[in-house]
Amino acid sequence: MLNPGEKIEDLELKGLKIIQNKEWFCFGIDAVLLADFANAKKDSRVVDFGTGTGILPLLMEGRYSPKEIVGVEVQAEVAEMANRSIELNDLQDKIKIINEDIKNYKDIGCNYFDVVVCNPPYKKDNTGIKNPTDKKAISRHEILVNLDEIILSASKVLKSGGKLYMIHRPERLSHILVALNKYKFAPRRIRFIHPNINKKPTMLLIEAVRSGGDFLTIDSPLYVYNEDGSYTDEINRIYGR
Amino acid sequence: MLNPGEKIEDLELKGLKIIQNKEWFCFGIDAVLLADFANAKKDSRVVDFGTGTGILPLLMEGRYSPKEIVGVEVQAEVAEMANRSIELNDLQDKIKIINEDIKNYKDIGCNYFDVVVCNPPYKKDNTGIKNPTDKKAISRHEILVNLDEIILSASKVLKSGGKLYMIHRPERLSHILVALNKYKFAPRRIRFIHPNINKKPTMLLIEAVRSGGDFLTIDSPLYVYNEDGSYTDEINRIYGR
Repeated sequence: MLNPGEKIEDLELKGLKIIQNKEWFCFGIDAVLLADFANAKKDSRVVDFGTGTGILPLLMEGRYSPKEIVGVEVQAEVAEMANRSIELNDLQDKIKIINEDIKNYKDIGCNYFDVVVCNPPYKKDNTGIKNPTDKKAISRHEILVNLDEIILSASKVLKSGGKLYMIHRPERLSHILVALNKYKFAPRRIRFIHPNINKKPTMLLIEAVRSGGDFLTIDSPLYVYNEDGSYTDEINRIYGR
Repeated sequence: MLNPGEKIEDLELKGLKIIQNKEWFCFGIDAVLLADFANAKKDSRVVDFGTGTGILPLLMEGRYSPKEIVGVEVQAEVAEMANRSIELNDLQDKIKIINEDIKNYKDIGCNYFDVVVCNPPYKKDNTGIKNPTDKKAISRHEILVNLDEIILSASKVLKSGGKLYMIHRPERLSHILVALNKYKFAPRRIRFIHPNINKKPTMLLIEAVRSGGDFLTIDSPLYVYNEDGSYTDEINRIYGR
């Protein structure tokens, strides 16, 4: 089941487990916060753009149990590992990992999904990257796909009224909102994630509705740490502690 | 000096005073927070779009003393009252109030100003307004000017590299960023204003640069009240208490 360099991690959520490779990219708090912020009804179809290890399909299944989840991953080796995680959890009837480029929305399924989740590469600037085939670099920098292409593809695969949930960096906020507007998404809810109450936000969560109405709310901030460095009650709740 | 219904208020800033009419619109915390968030160099030219009582020109003069300040007010009676406030402070050499529509940017001065400040009407929806000539309604709803027109005019009157400072409602964030992008402004800094640490923001402050580079920062939140209902230290600092 495991290749060299891989290990199995317990997600502490309904007995779910995931295979990770330390040399590639291991999931972090981003995926956990995004799954908590997102939502999916029991009869909905969910797709994760750039699924990596398959963490978001597993968390979405554990939290919401929608009827179908697809994880899209462009890197064949990574998709293969994610597939083994799905088999490890015996969830191959609910979750499918497909080795595809997000940009090829016709091959993912047009006007088919109710929910898109996406933890995209955050960094626009990909100058100075020594090895653009490096798996960590691909997950962090817009080498293979950019924000505009992600939002275009989301607009294609979602049904009208479908929802896009994304986590990103605050400095990209204007790009995100301009691209959402371009592809006829209405931003519905934004939540900024701050290290603590005195710090600038370091991440943001956003929910947008395809062809939705105009009712943007900025949520109360999400603080990760108390002033004494311990996790806030909300972070403990999200992690189910 | 005073007409019926008017009173003089002390701004508690360098002895400045202002004439207000309770029946029209009295300035609130918005103007004070915007003047604090904004900035203007000594040798700069500042214009206030929709100056009302003239509060922002007076606060900008009291805080930054730029070489020239213009307040633009479309309502003749309101502009006349603002003018009397400037005379009351003997500042007619520094501050000019002009009775003009913000949309007529050619009459305000193209490519002339370093700074635009604006505390605009917040509400997009102006259905159901009984009296669209009512001064309070005009200051609160987009009856005479809308966000897109304000940002277009700001782009015309500012020099390249000039700055626009605005206060607005969080639910308009997407409109603001899309319009800034349309008229070649780069948003530089956004600060959300929350009633307290557990509440959603009720206002936002934004700084944008005409033809500027791409470096958006979301500031740490500004909280108005402590949990016991007293003003936070930062609000007391802003009010000079």
